Amino acid sequence: MENKQEPTEILNAKLLQALVKGENKVFRKTFLNMHFYDQAQFYLALTDEQRHLLYHILDPHEVGDFFDTIEDDLPEMTELLAEMDPQYAAELLNSMFDDNAADILEHLPKEDVDHYLSLMDKADAIQLRKLLHYDTETAGGIMTTNFVSLRADLTVGQALAELKREADEAETIYYVYLVDADRYLVGVITLRDLIITDNHTKLAEVMTPNVITASVHDEQADVAQKIRDYDFIALPVVDDAQKLVGIITVDDVIEVIDDEAQSDYSGLAGVDVDDVSENPFKAASKRLPWLITLLFLGMSTATLINHYESLLSEASILAVFISLITGTAGNAGTQSLAVAVRRLALSNDDKPKLLRLIGSEILTGLVTGVVTGLTITLIVGIWKQNFVLGLTIGLAMTAAITVANLAGSLIPMLMDKLGFDPAVASGPFITTLSDLTSVLIYFSIAQIFLHAFLN
Amino acid sequence: MENKQEPTEILNAKLLQALVKGENKVFRKTFLNMHFYDQAQFYLALTDEQRHLLYHILDPHEVGDFFDTIEDDLPEMTELLAEMDPQYAAELLNSMFDDNAADILEHLPKEDVDHYLSLMDKADAIQLRKLLHYDTETAGGIMTTNFVSLRADLTVGQALAELKREADEAETIYYVYLVDADRYLVGVITLRDLIITDNHTKLAEVMTPNVITASVHDEQADVAQKIRDYDFIALPVVDDAQKLVGIITVDDVIEVIDDEAQSDYSGLAGVDVDDVSENPFKAASKRLPWLITLLFLGMSTATLINHYESLLSEASILAVFISLITGTAGNAGTQSLAVAVRRLALSNDDKPKLLRLIGSEILTGLVTGVVTGLTITLIVGIWKQNFVLGLTIGLAMTAAITVANLAGSLIPMLMDKLGFDPAVASGPFITTLSDLTSVLIYFSIAQIFLHAFLN
Repeated sequence: MENKQEPTEILNAKLLQALVKGENKVFRKTFLNMHFYDQAQFYLALTDEQRHLLYHILDPHEVGDFFDTIEDDLPEMTELLAEMDPQYAAELLNSMFDDNAADILEHLPKEDVDHYLSLMDKADAIQLRKLLHYDTETAGGIMTTNFVSLRADLTVGQALAELKREADEAETIYYVYLVDADRYLVGVITLRDLIITDNHTKLAEVMTPNVITASVHDEQADVAQKIRDYDFIALPVVDDAQKLVGIITVDDVIEVIDDEAQSDYSGLAGVDVDDVSENPFKAASKRLPWLITLLFLGMSTATLINHYESLLSEASILAVFISLITGTAGNAGTQSLAVAVRRLALSNDDKPKLLRLIGSEILTGLVTGVVTGLTITLIVGIWKQNFVLGLTIGLAMTAAITVANLAGSLIPMLMDKLGFDPAVASGPFITTLSDLTSVLIYFSIAQIFLHAFLN
Repeated sequence: MENKQEPTEILNAKLLQALVKGENKVFRKTFLNMHFYDQAQFYLALTDEQRHLLYHILDPHEVGDFFDTIEDDLPEMTELLAEMDPQYAAELLNSMFDDNAADILEHLPKEDVDHYLSLMDKADAIQLRKLLHYDTETAGGIMTTNFVSLRADLTVGQALAELKREADEAETIYYVYLVDADRYLVGVITLRDLIITDNHTKLAEVMTPNVITASVHDEQADVAQKIRDYDFIALPVVDDAQKLVGIITVDDVIEVIDDEAQSDYSGLAGVDVDDVSENPFKAASKRLPWLITLLFLGMSTATLINHYESLLSEASILAVFISLITGTAGNAGTQSLAVAVRRLALSNDDKPKLLRLIGSEILTGLVTGVVTGLTITLIVGIWKQNFVLGLTIGLAMTAAITVANLAGSLIPMLMDKLGFDPAVASGPFITTLSDLTSVLIYFSIAQIFLHAFLN
């Protein structure tokens, strides 16, 4: 084989040499033959000086091609734009798919956005400004306007000819959306179907008329779910007047699914795992707000224990089991929280379902509580040769776990009702809260049985 | 518009009526016009009897079409197959994309698999048996063999003609893989490029020769990352001899990304959130193993506190801060764990990076520990009018947080090294472990300062 793949490192070293030695022709030939993603990786590894050399060898459209694959890394992107000639940067943004360009512009100061837009092709600038108008986490915020729409009264042959002309501008040509004279969406046809259909057939005869769509205001998570359910490569987006205004492609949906998963994970952990800075001060500054907030919540537990000091000095054995009870209830609460967050993500917010969820969590809490409580009753009873003490600990454990389970499911549901993301109710929050309830339960029960187990 | 969409409920009610009244023609016309996913939803809502009626109206290929969209719900799938005539079920499996059919077969007892395969077309059965051979979470386990590969010496026109013939069998025709006489992959061309290229051009002249591939043994998470990075719709898979054996499509990648995210989330929570059973006994049985295991780990903390009983009876004030210190350290450990798991997922397992991660986590732990420690020193000092006690609690807090942070990052790394999924190191495990270390640190420091703060 002539076209054997060279190992990336060797290829990159050769490329770098060509770049710094000013062998522009060699550089262009090799570089432009690479996949956009690999181009981007090479580019991102360059020094400031080397990047400036590259801007002189490649035109903004060629840079835009690989910028389309790395637009997710936003903080870097804006710095990179700033180092370019503004006209160059504007043309680069103009040549990108407009959803990606909008993602970058969203993170720039308003005056920079205005400046870049003023340097662009007017029609494109208007298009981009419209996209910037939508909330980032809605269908409007993630859609692209680089799609192909044709009139349904064309024939398959005419459609294929039109596709050839528009292929370069469109983010995908695999789905072709069909509209009437007023830009109302009337059907969709895949390129697959176009290929296998006779050229003289009218599109209207072979199109799928029931088009699944999203509204510009739909939440991105719902859009992602739709594309997953139907195994689509793209989903058309309509505005309030039901006119076709954009499409969302499957690669954007993957980003959405990943973002949502990261934010759920971060929520449960009580720390933003998307920002994995290695600078200890920066990392600490991300974690401290939750830690200190929860420290104050933890202080109320300490105050509560302090309130029971006379009980503790009378029966210092009670101190031995504080962390066991709070810890186990906290673990159960975390489990319950995670299940509730997951269920809320799956359910469609209908009331009977939510009430059933609470009921089921209370029962699950009771079952796990009773089993764990019986276990600890036996352990403590045998260890301390005191089954009344064992029973006290066991009862407290059962009650503490049941309450923690209830809190773990009630709190995310409450947040959901109040319009917050339920995933923000973090595991650390639930465990710290359940420390408080567990201690209250523990000492209340201990007080009742005090004289029984001290004898 | 004639083709206005009917609300789903009304449409489904009409369909159901047609089904039970035996209006087979009406049923077929309406049903087969729906999207496969909507067909599947209708089907899944039917009773046993109604499903049997449907099997008589639709042929196995028509049922296979919508089974392709719901193959992820595996437990149900196998029961549904069992209720069909075996020959019907075999034909249904045969008509599905083979990665989906393999997913279902993997969950059947061996004798059922053999039986279904014996009823199938021989060539297809051999193909399926090969797929079943691969590990489920590898490229081989998720790939399909329903792809289009052509000889690179064809012209574009010949390729398009060939595509028309093969379109019906292939899972995607948007990427066409080009092979030489020995089935070695030599290039790829998109349908987009085929459409815009002159019919007489040879494929070899316009194909992309550097094909990004996966090996059959690659882990599914790595494959997913590749498809995400390059924004591909499909990725070709080669065997050990570098021959093209399958492709992985983007819809499968979405499932993989979602699976991995769910398993990370479940790991952190210490409960499998994928199984959100509402039956309290079933749900409890999923949660109890972790809870009881951790109960025993928690017992060692209780034993440790018991060991310090004389210290506690001398200074019962110490009991007041047990849950505050263990709780806060546990929260810090959970944060650290989540960051470490995320970093491990992103990193490529090179040693210097991991050592740097540990170093950075120790420093982050120290910074958060010192800030939290100072805060609690002040609070306790003012509350109890005893700054020596405050300093004791503060010092213990600082040390406990630093150790918890270290544990939170070391343990997932250790699991990774030992070949386990680092995400299995759950938040509850880290908090329970850190309870033990925190109590040890707390009482050791308290013992040193005991006489200072008691005066």
